[in-house]
Amino acid sequence: MTTVGILGGGQLARMLALSGAPLGLRFLVMDSVDDACAGQFAPMVVGDYRDEAALGEFASRVDVATFDFENVPAESAQWLSERVPVFPNPRALATAQDRLAEKTLFQQLGIPVPPFAAIDTRAQLDDALATIGTPCILKTRRLGYDGKGQFRIKTPADADAAWDALGAQAGKVGLILEGFVAFERELSVVAVRGRDGEFRTWPLTENWHVDGVLSASLAPATADAALAETAFAYARKLGEALDYVGVFALELFCRGGELLANELAPRVHNSGHWTIEGSETSQFQNHLRAVLGLPLGDTRMVGLACMLNWIGQMPEAAPVLSEPGGHWHDYGKLPRAGRKVGHATLRADSAQDLAATLVRVGVELDREAQVAPVVAALG
Amino acid sequence: MTTVGILGGGQLARMLALSGAPLGLRFLVMDSVDDACAGQFAPMVVGDYRDEAALGEFASRVDVATFDFENVPAESAQWLSERVPVFPNPRALATAQDRLAEKTLFQQLGIPVPPFAAIDTRAQLDDALATIGTPCILKTRRLGYDGKGQFRIKTPADADAAWDALGAQAGKVGLILEGFVAFERELSVVAVRGRDGEFRTWPLTENWHVDGVLSASLAPATADAALAETAFAYARKLGEALDYVGVFALELFCRGGELLANELAPRVHNSGHWTIEGSETSQFQNHLRAVLGLPLGDTRMVGLACMLNWIGQMPEAAPVLSEPGGHWHDYGKLPRAGRKVGHATLRADSAQDLAATLVRVGVELDREAQVAPVVAALG
Ligand SMILES: Nc1ncnc2c1ncn2[C@@H]1O[C@H](COP(=O)(O)OP(=O)(O)OP(=O)(O)O)[C@@H](O)[C@H]1O
Ligand SMILES: Nc1ncnc2c1ncn2[C@@H]1O[C@H](COP(=O)(O)OP(=O)(O)OP(=O)(O)O)[C@@H](O)[C@H]1O
Repeated sequence: MTTVGILGGGQLARMLALSGAPLGLRFLVMDSVDDACAGQFAPMVVGDYRDEAALGEFASRVDVATFDFENVPAESAQWLSERVPVFPNPRALATAQDRLAEKTLFQQLGIPVPPFAAIDTRAQLDDALATIGTPCILKTRRLGYDGKGQFRIKTPADADAAWDALGAQAGKVGLILEGFVAFERELSVVAVRGRDGEFRTWPLTENWHVDGVLSASLAPATADAALAETAFAYARKLGEALDYVGVFALELFCRGGELLANELAPRVHNSGHWTIEGSETSQFQNHLRAVLGLPLGDTRMVGLACMLNWIGQMPEAAPVLSEPGGHWHDYGKLPRAGRKVGHATLRADSAQDLAATLVRVGVELDREAQVAPVVAALG
Repeated sequence: MTTVGILGGGQLARMLALSGAPLGLRFLVMDSVDDACAGQFAPMVVGDYRDEAALGEFASRVDVATFDFENVPAESAQWLSERVPVFPNPRALATAQDRLAEKTLFQQLGIPVPPFAAIDTRAQLDDALATIGTPCILKTRRLGYDGKGQFRIKTPADADAAWDALGAQAGKVGLILEGFVAFERELSVVAVRGRDGEFRTWPLTENWHVDGVLSASLAPATADAALAETAFAYARKLGEALDYVGVFALELFCRGGELLANELAPRVHNSGHWTIEGSETSQFQNHLRAVLGLPLGDTRMVGLACMLNWIGQMPEAAPVLSEPGGHWHDYGKLPRAGRKVGHATLRADSAQDLAATLVRVGVELDREAQVAPVVAALG
């Protein structure tokens, strides 16, 4: 009997446990709050990741550990990895936690990135603004998620406001200034790498964000094969450079046919949720297969899939459940503004059918704006 | 928040919980043993179904109840149904629990059955043997499963041995004598009926038993459309007659192109496990959708699927996990002779591919005999 420990007990841990159960696995989840939604389907250790007693209990009860939450303190991951095997390895986690380390690695590997600069002081911000130009974005280097910890600078006159908003973070989590990319599209590669280095990707996914939070994903992205191959090659290089084991996502901007890397998510990713029903093997099961050294599952998809995120509160389920290819995912969370509480996946055999399904669902749930860009992309 | 109670905590309850989690449901399982495998993913009440205190606690903590185990005492189901909604209804359950009631209903609905007779005494056995002839099977009317409580009578001279084996049960659970059907094939209809009477079936499934226990299933069965329509019509009639809500399976013998009904399983069924990966909606999720009055999901399948049962102990997983369409289900049970401990589902886009996959898996797991009849059926 193998018990997989998961640091973080949100929806990713929940879906990992649900998809890993058929492999005969048991799970133990660690979270700082006792009502974390994965706890509805797996036993939990409640405690802070920095609390050695709690982390020690967790370590003593698991055979291998992985992450639902990428911002587990690097020292905690390191401490844990001295006691049980941890995948992805703490170095990969640490790199992905730090936008500066991540972008530096992208550059070293020849993966194009937007212009960026580390910012420790107000003077450095002014210098970087002069080099990078506006528009640009000031971001915390670490602990950002869902667009949090970001300030958009439209003109040099916004520098004061940006520094007021984030300057205090410079000494804590560090800051980075990035050129704003006037992208046509956002894409992601969801990839899995096994313990033996075997590498697979799911079809390229196109993503739409609203207020910095993922709103919808479409797979396969309506991209030409060459673009997809380039994106896959970047992901493969990253996986090898980090000796990565498990699933990760590489988020990319596409501008004028060029790809620019935005970030690496060192875990199963929201833009891969469609793989549960849309692919022969889901990202969740393949993550576990990789972590356990089992053969990786087939990542092919049948037809097309669109994932719609539910933020804040769940809409009515019936319009989605009534669609032939409609699948519902309620994470069992309490409603709260800005919180990812669930998603739906719509599957269809043709772009036309998928577009028609999305239009119906959009109307019935009064979410025309959410489905509109996907319908447009489907032509 | 809706909590679904499940009486019985085996693999069916486990797969119900795993597939119902995305609907935002919580589960509570009741079982007489505390290590029932569903308890690894859902909270449990441990107790006997006849223990009113335990059943009362279960009732007080659930919004609706259903079954993993069909032999819950009819009185317990009735008692429960006076406190919470129970699906399927206790009458449907009671009918399916009793081979005599079940076969009588089949007859009333014009569904062909093998010749049968109720047996209460040794004299009745002799009379029935004279009418039905040999070969035939003496079965307990109630509490039989996986071929248990059956005695095959090849010649009239076996009557003594049959009575020695099962006569003592006549006064307890009753006996029935059935003509032995020299069937060419065994088929099953897995069907779902909603609270509003909506009725759907998955494609007809062909099944192979070894020692009375399901060994392999193939979907769709290699049957002509007319035969499938007849089978679906029988299932629909049964669902209506019993005002059935949820998933059930109708097991059929096919002999000389004619269908004879064997039994009705008032629950999700082993011959429907392939629906997890082989169909747009699994039998498990559709059972829950039906029980909760939600729209039923699409039952279409893509390609073909074969399910192989693992009895006694789990084989090695890698040969199945290495197949592109290979899916693994380990129920998390301890090995024990005769116990259903898991299954595998193999999916493919063509009969040829599926046969090739099965041959490979059969060789690697040294289970050529288990896959052979399926490979033969695939032509
Ligand atoms: N340099 C940029 N140019 C243009 N848009 C950007 C840039 N950086 C971020 N964005 C926009 O904001 C979104 C979120 O940014 P980013 O991925 O950096 O945030 P995050 O907080 O790490 O979010 P998550 O981890 O959920 O993807 C991006 O998907 C993109 O839409
Ligand atoms: N009358 C019959 N003629 C021929 N074979 C039979 C007959 N009855 C049972 N069998 C064989 O035995 C198997 C199990 O029988 P049956 O379905 O009655 O048992 P059970 O204990 O209720 O099993 P389960 O509920 O697991 O299907 C059948 O699938 C069939 O292969």
